[in-house]
Parts: sequence; structure tokens; C-alpha cells
Amino acid sequence: MFYDTRDGSRPLRYDPFKAIVAPRPIGWVTTISAKGEVNLAPYSFFNGILSKPNFVMFGSEGFKDSVRNVEETGEFVCNLATWDLREAMNETAAPLAYGENEMVRAGLAPAPSKLVKPPRVAAAPCALECKKTMMIPLHDVDGKPVDGFVVFGQVVGVHIDDRFIKDGLLDTAAMKPIARCGYHDYAVVERTFTLVRPES
Amino acid sequence: MFYDTRDGSRPLRYDPFKAIVAPRPIGWVTTISAKGEVNLAPYSFFNGILSKPNFVMFGSEGFKDSVRNVEETGEFVCNLATWDLREAMNETAAPLAYGENEMVRAGLAPAPSKLVKPPRVAAAPCALECKKTMMIPLHDVDGKPVDGFVVFGQVVGVHIDDRFIKDGLLDTAAMKPIARCGYHDYAVVERTFTLVRPES
Repeated sequence: MFYDTRDGSRPLRYDPFKAIVAPRPIGWVTTISAKGEVNLAPYSFFNGILSKPNFVMFGSEGFKDSVRNVEETGEFVCNLATWDLREAMNETAAPLAYGENEMVRAGLAPAPSKLVKPPRVAAAPCALECKKTMMIPLHDVDGKPVDGFVVFGQVVGVHIDDRFIKDGLLDTAAMKPIARCGYHDYAVVERTFTLVRPES
Repeated sequence: MFYDTRDGSRPLRYDPFKAIVAPRPIGWVTTISAKGEVNLAPYSFFNGILSKPNFVMFGSEGFKDSVRNVEETGEFVCNLATWDLREAMNETAAPLAYGENEMVRAGLAPAPSKLVKPPRVAAAPCALECKKTMMIPLHDVDGKPVDGFVVFGQVVGVHIDDRFIKDGLLDTAAMKPIARCGYHDYAVVERTFTLVRPES
């Protein structure tokens, strides 16, 4: 099937967009408000955007608490969501009032970050300490504003649980990272396969 | 372990960043130059950034051919890379001269798009026709330019192979999408699990 997203036709019951752009890594983002209130929320419109140096982005539908906090304080931490932490991660997706701490609700212990103020999730096997470089309000192809914001951040500090390092390489599959698919669906990475890029 | 990405210490043999931000969905991006030359290349710094309306982004290390083409013609198509297409996808990652067509090299048939000029990969189960809304050169936290570019695009047209639609829902796992992990590693989604977000 083909459909034009702008002509109002909806050939399926739900928008399949998030089932097409899948699996999406989860930026489980800790932020802190100017007042010092901690927020933790999962963002699946999250990814790296550059490796030299390490940069990440996350996109928010609407001006959510995490975005507001990043605007106020300029920092965030991306924690790795894993199979073992899936229920706690899901608890932090609940719509709480601004200022309520999702880490407390989910029973997650914080650990202090080294270079930024927001804490990391102590139980997460990896965490990326980030400083915002840009926050971009989106507009559509006609130049009209839409209700979305993208945050870019440079990764300044990296935490890795040494148990997952083998021969100098990080064993992604051993951490069992989870990823977002469409609807209520998630995937988990428990094994990988290898493809070597052709040289020419 | 912890390290500061900016102090020059490199505790591991290779930068583990791409093994941490994983699994990354693959935007297998078709573009066309002003002269009409087709380019196809996989980008794993790819994701949705907004669903209402559908928006995607991809990040490029350096000003690659796809970015140059989007700058010239303002359009791109994101094809879904799957297990069945993994070898062909990998062939299109080869560094060819500007103007050489990776689709020909990989033996992939193009199919015409409906709303944009770049063709889609006929064999891909989904393709997103996109119009660029922004192209952003990156700078680091100190305001210094870095060699990275991020392209934002609104999805204007959506192709889905009807075989993967069941009861009005798109069956992501049945398409077996592949995703990028670190080093030479990939993951494939063949099954999903469900988590329902708490209401409050």
C-alpha cells in the first residue's frame, strides 16, 4: 500500500510509523530542573548522531519535562535500558506531575554523575553524561511550527560496567539492551551477527 | 569504568560509543543529485524524531554524498533494511566515487517514488518518502564546528508491503528488520515482547 501522510487518508487503524522505524534504541534520560528536581523518562526517538566526537540526540513530542529541564540546566544523562530493567523503565514512562521523581516511583537508586548534575541510574550498565549543544523546535515542510523538539548533546563522560567488557570490546548482547518497536512492542538484543563492510 | 571523552584518555581499544547506543535502526537512504545520479547508503545514526506528523533524521560523519544530494535536491527516501536484504545493504556501504550508483552495484531494483524524485528499493518492505526540513552542521559544547551534519525530513509518503499487515497492524518482527550495533555487529528483530505504559 501507499499513502500520502498529508492528505488525511488513514489506511490503517493506527499510524504504523513507529512500527516501521524500528527497533529504536532507548535513551533513558535523566535531567534536573533549576530547582534540583530529578526527572527520568524513556525516549525512543533517541540515537547517536556523530561518533567523532560522541554526540547524541533525542526528540520529544511536545515540550516535555526532560526538555524543559535541559533548557533550564543544559545537561542530561542517557542511561542504557536493558532486559533486567524493563519493568522499572516502563514505570518511568508514567505521566507524573512536573517535579515528581520517576526514579523514586520505579525504585531505582541514583548514582552521582562525574561531569554533569543529573544523576545516572546506578543499575544501568552504561550511562552517557551529556551537555546540550542545541535545542531545535521543529517546523514542517511548509515552514509551519509542529509540536516537536530535538535536543542535541555532546557526550562528555562515559560509564561502563566493567563486567561487560571482553578483550577491550563492549559486549552489547551480554547487556541485553531493549529497543522500542511499534504499538506496545519492544525488542531485546541477546545475540548479534557480523557483516564486514566492503573496502571498495 | 568511567572516562572523560575530552581528556584524551582511551581506556578501550576502540571507542565503545556505537556499542552503547544500540541497536540502531538503519535508514537505508536513497538520494538523487541535481544531475539525476542515484545514491543509496545505510545510515545508522537514523531515527524518527516526531510522530505527529511523521519526521525522521539522519546524521552523517562528514559531508557525505547523501547529504550533498539532499542539499542539492531536498528529498530522500528511507528504505527498511531487513535480514533478507542484509548482504545487499552491506554492499551499498562500500565507498564508491561520487555519482556511482550503489543500487546497480548491489543488484537492487529501484521502484519509482510517488511524491519525491529519489527511487525506493523495490525489495524493501517499507519505504518513507521524505522532504528535507532542515540540515544542521554540528558544533561542540565550546561552539567549535565538528565534522558532522544532521538532516531532518518530514515523511510525506509511506510504502508498506501489504503482506506484513495483520488486522490493521504492521508486523515488525515478520519483516525481520536489522539494526546496527557496535564494531561489525548487527542485530535482527524476529520477535517482540510487550510492555503497557502505566496510565498514571
